[in-house]
Amino acid sequence: MAGFTTRNGDPFDRTLFESLLKRRLFYTESFEIYRTSGKLKGDSRGLYDYGPPGCALQSNIVDLWRKHFVLQEDMLELDCTVLTPEEVFKTSGHVDKFEDWMCKDSKKGDFLRADHLIETVLEARLKGDKAARGIAAEGDEADGEGKKKKKGPKVSEIKALKLEDSMVAEYEEVLAKIDNYDGPELGQLIEKYDIRNPDGNTPVSPPVPFNLMFKTTVGPSKTAQGQFLNFKKLLDYNQNLMPFASASIGKSFRNEISPRSGLLRVREFLMAEIEHFVDPEGGKKHPKFHLVKDLQLSFLDRATQLGGKTNLHKTTIGEAVASRMVDNETLGYFLGRIYLFLLKIGVDANKVRFRQHMANEMAHYATDCWDAELQTTYGWIECVGCADRSAYDLTVHSKKTEEPLVVRESRREPLKVEEWHIDISKPKLGPLFKKNAKAVEAALFSLSQSEREPLAVTLEEKGVISVRVPDMAEQVEVSKDLISIVKRTKIENVREYIPNVIEPSFGIGRIFYSLLEHVYWHRANDPARGVLSLPISVAPTKVLIVPLSTHHDFVPLTRKITEDLRELGISCRADESSASIGKRYARNDELGIPLDVTIDFDSVKDGTITLRERDSTKQVRASQKEVFGAIKSLISGEEKWEDVFARLPEFLGQSGDD
Amino acid sequence: MAGFTTRNGDPFDRTLFESLLKRRLFYTESFEIYRTSGKLKGDSRGLYDYGPPGCALQSNIVDLWRKHFVLQEDMLELDCTVLTPEEVFKTSGHVDKFEDWMCKDSKKGDFLRADHLIETVLEARLKGDKAARGIAAEGDEADGEGKKKKKGPKVSEIKALKLEDSMVAEYEEVLAKIDNYDGPELGQLIEKYDIRNPDGNTPVSPPVPFNLMFKTTVGPSKTAQGQFLNFKKLLDYNQNLMPFASASIGKSFRNEISPRSGLLRVREFLMAEIEHFVDPEGGKKHPKFHLVKDLQLSFLDRATQLGGKTNLHKTTIGEAVASRMVDNETLGYFLGRIYLFLLKIGVDANKVRFRQHMANEMAHYATDCWDAELQTTYGWIECVGCADRSAYDLTVHSKKTEEPLVVRESRREPLKVEEWHIDISKPKLGPLFKKNAKAVEAALFSLSQSEREPLAVTLEEKGVISVRVPDMAEQVEVSKDLISIVKRTKIENVREYIPNVIEPSFGIGRIFYSLLEHVYWHRANDPARGVLSLPISVAPTKVLIVPLSTHHDFVPLTRKITEDLRELGISCRADESSASIGKRYARNDELGIPLDVTIDFDSVKDGTITLRERDSTKQVRASQKEVFGAIKSLISGEEKWEDVFARLPEFLGQSGDD
Repeated sequence: MAGFTTRNGDPFDRTLFESLLKRRLFYTESFEIYRTSGKLKGDSRGLYDYGPPGCALQSNIVDLWRKHFVLQEDMLELDCTVLTPEEVFKTSGHVDKFEDWMCKDSKKGDFLRADHLIETVLEARLKGDKAARGIAAEGDEADGEGKKKKKGPKVSEIKALKLEDSMVAEYEEVLAKIDNYDGPELGQLIEKYDIRNPDGNTPVSPPVPFNLMFKTTVGPSKTAQGQFLNFKKLLDYNQNLMPFASASIGKSFRNEISPRSGLLRVREFLMAEIEHFVDPEGGKKHPKFHLVKDLQLSFLDRATQLGGKTNLHKTTIGEAVASRMVDNETLGYFLGRIYLFLLKIGVDANKVRFRQHMANEMAHYATDCWDAELQTTYGWIECVGCADRSAYDLTVHSKKTEEPLVVRESRREPLKVEEWHIDISKPKLGPLFKKNAKAVEAALFSLSQSEREPLAVTLEEKGVISVRVPDMAEQVEVSKDLISIVKRTKIENVREYIPNVIEPSFGIGRIFYSLLEHVYWHRANDPARGVLSLPISVAPTKVLIVPLSTHHDFVPLTRKITEDLRELGISCRADESSASIGKRYARNDELGIPLDVTIDFDSVKDGTITLRERDSTKQVRASQKEVFGAIKSLISGEEKWEDVFARLPEFLGQSGDD
Repeated sequence: MAGFTTRNGDPFDRTLFESLLKRRLFYTESFEIYRTSGKLKGDSRGLYDYGPPGCALQSNIVDLWRKHFVLQEDMLELDCTVLTPEEVFKTSGHVDKFEDWMCKDSKKGDFLRADHLIETVLEARLKGDKAARGIAAEGDEADGEGKKKKKGPKVSEIKALKLEDSMVAEYEEVLAKIDNYDGPELGQLIEKYDIRNPDGNTPVSPPVPFNLMFKTTVGPSKTAQGQFLNFKKLLDYNQNLMPFASASIGKSFRNEISPRSGLLRVREFLMAEIEHFVDPEGGKKHPKFHLVKDLQLSFLDRATQLGGKTNLHKTTIGEAVASRMVDNETLGYFLGRIYLFLLKIGVDANKVRFRQHMANEMAHYATDCWDAELQTTYGWIECVGCADRSAYDLTVHSKKTEEPLVVRESRREPLKVEEWHIDISKPKLGPLFKKNAKAVEAALFSLSQSEREPLAVTLEEKGVISVRVPDMAEQVEVSKDLISIVKRTKIENVREYIPNVIEPSFGIGRIFYSLLEHVYWHRANDPARGVLSLPISVAPTKVLIVPLSTHHDFVPLTRKITEDLRELGISCRADESSASIGKRYARNDELGIPLDVTIDFDSVKDGTITLRERDSTKQVRASQKEVFGAIKSLISGEEKWEDVFARLPEFLGQSGDD
């Protein structure tokens, strides 16, 4: 892997990038003035507020998500409560199963995530090895190598140690499989490789499980539970038609024990989740599969990872499903839709891969699971999960509540089912078993079809059978005059089944952060002049209005253009500060504003204004009406900048972009 | 007050109305299948999920809110965390002050809100009195009389008791002032009027305070705190320009001890809050006040309520501010904007009033506070608060964190300030007071300007002054040779002030429910045929596509029109069920879908389709292109139905609306 670079090939400087995001208020640590004044007792890290551009970008991403999924696929959107009773979580498995394995540094008292610790240490050793061998430690500047790599010791701090070749291969294999180990296995690795806390070189305790969900009586939720609990009502709302999907957007919470990596590991985050309910019979076909089957994706499948490799396999979704690498059409369809969504919001197609979960990583009931991962300076980050969860969720909630969460549909052809029936002579059974009669009856009726068949034979042959009755010490003998077991044919006109669910689940905050890394670059030879090339559809503000100077002649026109754009529902800002026009352009390139309208003395005279495009810094000049027309068609997507640039006269004076 | 009626004057049947909302899945109780199966231990009432139409309506309301406030007023929107450390809440006063007064029914163990209990009982007595006097108990059918009335005993259950005239007046006065009583006063009323739990007639305990915020280490939040904590960054983002406003939309939580009244008293709700920061000097003028000053609102001011009345005073915002009934222009401006927003989403102008808070109801630091209340079958419901909170929030957070949350601006004219300065001769003071020298020095410097002036006179006259020094038992004498107190003139070029804040705060769930009551009515003489006349801008789905029957000839065109509308970003649904066309229209009138496109055999032949308007049930017929044009202009607001109806030919066949 080459070092992580910006879209135009420059090395990626994360320090400059993060300082841009904070300076322009994309996000900020929550309660910062409390934290810096030392007024907070507890650990309240891992919480961030989104400032005006971040908030607008997030809501534009969510808006596009709604259009791409809910509107275009006719999904049923729900808004479910965050507060969820513990009983619901217990059933869904969230209370018991969502846990991380943590090691304690007994000297410092720190808790460290076992998998991250192993990654950090082994990657550092590999880097040290490369240094010793005289190979450039790739990605070093950007801290960008390795999967989900967290802050580790700098290469310069590591003793350049040459590893044996076999050891290099072993480490690389461990790293490729890191998500597949359970707690005890992580413990073994720590012992085997003598892994210690890099910060002080202290040994750490064996990993212990740590539950990620907050422990509160009325606890926080994944949005998905509400979709399962309302399944019957949704099916009814959908006029009993299958398949269908529901969707939900809402806050989720994780009790991250040591939040870090900025926006990537936080305690509170926005999730957008889809539950697509599908008939488990018939191979989970999807009627719109043909629309995505020719899309080519980069896959990292289970077998490759278990082989200790991370090579990407480029192929079409159609082939991936045909070869059964991806389990079924519906799952494949959603991988395609996820990919298209990511491109639409501006993600770099070369920095997306689909990684399959390994067996231990996946819930036991899941049929298949793929993560859309985006490449960042922190490594490959899981941003969207897409799992086939089989009938698990509906089954467990249904069992717990005794509410049948099923689909009932008329069979085209009635189904004939041969079944063993038990007929009991109650007038004889009652007096014989007295107070136990009911229990005996229940035990007989609870016999399964496979148990009934041999018993029918025994009864026929010996005239008596033995049955175990719960709460009675000995088996009970029941003779031919009390019961008969006979085969009868039943006609079933209705088919009843529990749907399977395909669950695409989007971490909006992670997508948000990774997208910003993908669109960030800087002007040639000037790392200080950062640009965020956000597509116009998600850009926080669409148009900046810039008068040439603070001259009072410009004020009325600046106000008027601002009001007129707002009237059209176009998000815009005027920058009337006294900074030079170049500085103002640069400031707003950092905000990712795609279009600038400039007002100069000619504008005041003849009403013409200029329109500047952020990425190329090229400008055109035309009447307000023409420029507004261009802005509208650029926002609606009817035209691209090249079209506008081709049909309106270029403006070459006072570019300001020097 | 007349009984609560629907928009066309029919009595309002809340049972039918609520059954419509639940049947069409506008909302549903959360975890219902757990509740009905008895699997929930704790009290998890007061939590609701919004189904597809409810969720879409809510997000359309929020969308319009963003356009009306954030976009049009250029506010800085933030997305702040729900999780908030306790320290922040303590400072903001939320932990100590947000409380209700609760009475315990010791027999049943129920907790009842003291103010609601008094309201319920006194209103029931007044109704009984009317019944005894033979006056029709108004609003009885709809259970709709009285302010914020909750479920009480039915009139039929109350002994018809004639009250003395003076008692009627007393009760009415208590009810008008109910929001102004504190806990002990509520206790006195309960004793005086022998108020008991209507459910069993048991006496109740005196009221005790009950904190409404959840008690968790990392507790839930009002969105506002994040806006105050980020004030400095926002001011900087706004290039130091005042006034400006920030805005936030987010979930809030209340530990309602006995949730009831459906969507009106819930534990989790969506809030949209604005903090408008304004210079406290200069009368809090607003530059756009002229745009709202002629709007006529219905006001219920403090004085009227204290006089025991609830008469509404209709006047313009301009007059209300001029007479100082409303404290200032900025507050008045926001009352106007709130009113316009409510009308825009479809609230009935005759069911809106602005009620001023009484002294006890208002926080001590607030300058003035008005609630926009919407009239419903539950009485007048507070849906939007609009308070002038003075400099309170910024001041307390600033004190706690020692971070100056202030505006600094250059003065046009430097200000000359005469100040008393204290000059100390340290070489003399040190040896004299030894280890106390620092404390004495600090005590001297901490003397206020008003204390310094007389001390200067004393020092001049007697040559010595006495000063109290913290931590020292006796006053300290300081003589002329140690200090001098002199008047000097200081030139201030910078003005520094803590902005005041005007806070409009919207309870989206309450607005949502009240709006639905306002737009609900039923077809003439048929209470079972309900209609929700939601404006097209907020309607959950804009267009329903209805083929005449399930005939297979209609399938391709139905699919095509659905896809074409989605392509245009228009939210639509096809109803291809086998129900009669009239039934399908009726079903979708209940969903508030404003437009129906009908496909019949002529459509298949010549491509023309019909467009039906929900409220009038009138239809036009034209080509797909013309109908799509009409749909687009109706949604964008360029045309009204009357315009479309006037220019496209009416369709009179197969209306289906019989």
